[in-house]
Amino acid sequence: MDAHELDTPCLLLDLDAVEHNIAAMMASLAGTGVALRPHFKTPKCPQVARLQLEAGAIGITVAKLGEAEVLADAGLGPILMANQVVGRTKIDRLMALLARGVDITVAVESEFNVRELAEGARRSGQRPAAVIEVDAGMSRCGTSTPAETVALARMLAGEGIGYRGIMGYEGHMYAQPEEEPRRQLIEAALGAVNRHAEALAEAGLPPGIVSTSGSASTAIASQTPGITELQAGTYIFHDSHHEAFTPGIFRYALTLLTTVITVRDRYAVCDTGMKSLSNDHGPSFSRDGTFKAARLSEEHAHLTGPGIAALGPGQKVELVPSHGDTTLNLHDVYHVVRNGQVVDEWPILGARKFK
Amino acid sequence: MDAHELDTPCLLLDLDAVEHNIAAMMASLAGTGVALRPHFKTPKCPQVARLQLEAGAIGITVAKLGEAEVLADAGLGPILMANQVVGRTKIDRLMALLARGVDITVAVESEFNVRELAEGARRSGQRPAAVIEVDAGMSRCGTSTPAETVALARMLAGEGIGYRGIMGYEGHMYAQPEEEPRRQLIEAALGAVNRHAEALAEAGLPPGIVSTSGSASTAIASQTPGITELQAGTYIFHDSHHEAFTPGIFRYALTLLTTVITVRDRYAVCDTGMKSLSNDHGPSFSRDGTFKAARLSEEHAHLTGPGIAALGPGQKVELVPSHGDTTLNLHDVYHVVRNGQVVDEWPILGARKFK
Repeated sequence: MDAHELDTPCLLLDLDAVEHNIAAMMASLAGTGVALRPHFKTPKCPQVARLQLEAGAIGITVAKLGEAEVLADAGLGPILMANQVVGRTKIDRLMALLARGVDITVAVESEFNVRELAEGARRSGQRPAAVIEVDAGMSRCGTSTPAETVALARMLAGEGIGYRGIMGYEGHMYAQPEEEPRRQLIEAALGAVNRHAEALAEAGLPPGIVSTSGSASTAIASQTPGITELQAGTYIFHDSHHEAFTPGIFRYALTLLTTVITVRDRYAVCDTGMKSLSNDHGPSFSRDGTFKAARLSEEHAHLTGPGIAALGPGQKVELVPSHGDTTLNLHDVYHVVRNGQVVDEWPILGARKFK
Repeated sequence: MDAHELDTPCLLLDLDAVEHNIAAMMASLAGTGVALRPHFKTPKCPQVARLQLEAGAIGITVAKLGEAEVLADAGLGPILMANQVVGRTKIDRLMALLARGVDITVAVESEFNVRELAEGARRSGQRPAAVIEVDAGMSRCGTSTPAETVALARMLAGEGIGYRGIMGYEGHMYAQPEEEPRRQLIEAALGAVNRHAEALAEAGLPPGIVSTSGSASTAIASQTPGITELQAGTYIFHDSHHEAFTPGIFRYALTLLTTVITVRDRYAVCDTGMKSLSNDHGPSFSRDGTFKAARLSEEHAHLTGPGIAALGPGQKVELVPSHGDTTLNLHDVYHVVRNGQVVDEWPILGARKFK
C-alpha cells in the first residue's frame, strides 16, 4: 500500500532513514570507547529499541517508570532511568520491576530520594540501584557540588543501595545557537560532570557509569575522556530542530502525513494541528522545504511558502516535525515505510507513559 | 480516596465546578433565543456531553469524525461537525455513520467538498447533510463572499445533500487583548456571518442553522439577532487563558496533579512537562496563584513564585492549565472529584481522535 493512501493525520516512519541513523551514530562512536544507551523517550517503541540494541547499544535510557514498564514487558534492557522516582506509588512500582528481575538503575539527586528508595527496599526486600544525577549547568535537578555527590554516594552505600555512578545532562546547550560558544558550553558542562567523577574517585567511590549528553552533543562528548556512555535519543528519527545542531549527519525518518483541506492565494489549510503535531521547537516543514506549517490551531495548520501553489484540496502532504518527541507522543502507531510503501505498523507503546 | 493520593501526573475534574459552569452558561443564554450546541473538542468525554444535553444543549459540536464516532457509540447527538470531511476514507466513514442512523451534519466550504460528499452519497446510498462554513474574518476555511455561499447552497440542493444552514467562527478575536476593540471585532465577525445569512434568505435559501462563537464571545453572540446557536466548548472546564476573556463567570474544573521532585532557592521542579501539560497559551498556575510552571521541558516543569517556599519533594500540587483542550488531549482519564475526594473515573474517549 502506498503510504499516501493512509487516513490522516498519521505518522510515517521511513525504515531506511532509521537504519541510516543507527549506523551513523554507531560509526560516530566507533573506537571512542564511549558506549551508547539510547534514550527511549524519542522512539517510545520496543521495535526501535531492539534495532538499537542489535546495533550495539549497551542498554536503554528512559525518562519515566511507565517507559521502563513498556521495555520490561518487551524483555528489553538493561534500563537506566535518567530521572528520580518520587512518591510511594512510584517507588513501589520500581520495586515491582526489580521483583520481576528487571535490570533497572534509577537516578537520585537528594537525601530525600535515597531515603525513599531505602524505605522501598526495606518494604519489598528488593535491592535497588542508582546513579547520582549531577547538575551540569542546566539548573534543573542534580547535585550542585562534588561534595554533595560524594555524600550521596556514601549514603547509597550505607543504605545498601547499589551505587552505579553518575549522570549529568547539558540540555541548556540548546539555548546557544552559535557553534563555537555552544562547544565551549558543552565542554564546560562535561568538565563539571568530570569534576564530580574525580571527587568520587578520590573518595574511593569511582563511578562505573558516567552518563551524559543528547544527540546534539555526541560529537564532543564521545571525545571527552571520563565519559563512559551517552543518552542520545533524537538521532534515531531526527527532526528539523536537531538538524540545526547536527547538520548533514542524520536523516529525517519521521514525518506527519496530512491532507490539504483548502488552498487560498497566500496559504493552504491542512488537517493537522496542535492536537496531532507539536510546534514547541517551531514550525514543521515539507520534505522539500517549499512550505511550512506556519500557524497551528487545534486541528488545522496554515501552510505557507511557494510550494502551496502546487497543492489542491484532498492532496496528502508530509511534514517533518520540528520536535519529533512531542509529536509522536500524540500518536499511537508508526506506519513503517520503505520506498513509500507501508511495510509494517509499530505501536508507540511508550506514548504518554508519563507516570 | 483523597485525590492527592493519586499517582502523577494526572487530571482531576472538579464536578462541582463542571456543574457550576453548565449552569452559568445556560443562565447566560436563558431568554436570548440562542441555543447551545457545545463543542466536544474540549471535554472529549461522553459523560460530560450527557450532562450538557441534560441541561438543555440542543446537540453536540465536534471537530473531527473520530469525535463523532465516539459520540455515536455513546448514543449522543445530534452531531454538528464544524469542519470539512476531506478524502475518500473519511467520506466513507461519514457515510457509515449515516448508515447507522446517526444524525450528523458536516461543514462544507468549497465545490470540492460538495462534490466529494455527493460522490460518497452516490456510492453509499446515504443522504448527507451540511452547513456552509463562511469565513468570519479568521482567514482559515470558509467561503469569502455571500455570493459564494449562495452558490454552494444551490449546489448542495442540486446534489441532493441536505442544506442545514451556515456556520462561522471568530477565533481571531483571541488575538485582541483589549475588551472594547475585541467587542467590535466580534460584532464585525458576527455581522459578516449575518450578511451571508441574509444573502441566502434573499436567494430563497434561508439558513435553519446560523452557528458561531466560542465561550469567550458568548455574551455578545447570544445578544446578536440572526445567530441561532453557539459552539462554545471551553466554558465546561474553563482554563486560565479563558479567564482573561470571561473573568469571574466560570470556575476552574480541570487541574493537573503533579509531584514535586526537588526544591531549590529560586525554583522547584515537578514531574510534568510538555508530554503531559500544554503551554501553547502560556504557563499553568497553582490554584492559589502563588506559583506557576514557568518553564517546561519534556517531563519536567520549573515552578517559580513565592509559593514554592512552602513546597517540599514528594508533595502533590495542582496546576490550572492555560489551555485545557490541548492538555487533556494528552491524557486518557479524568479522576472525578467532589470536595477533594475521588468519586469516579471518566475515560477521555475523544482524546487524540484527530482523524
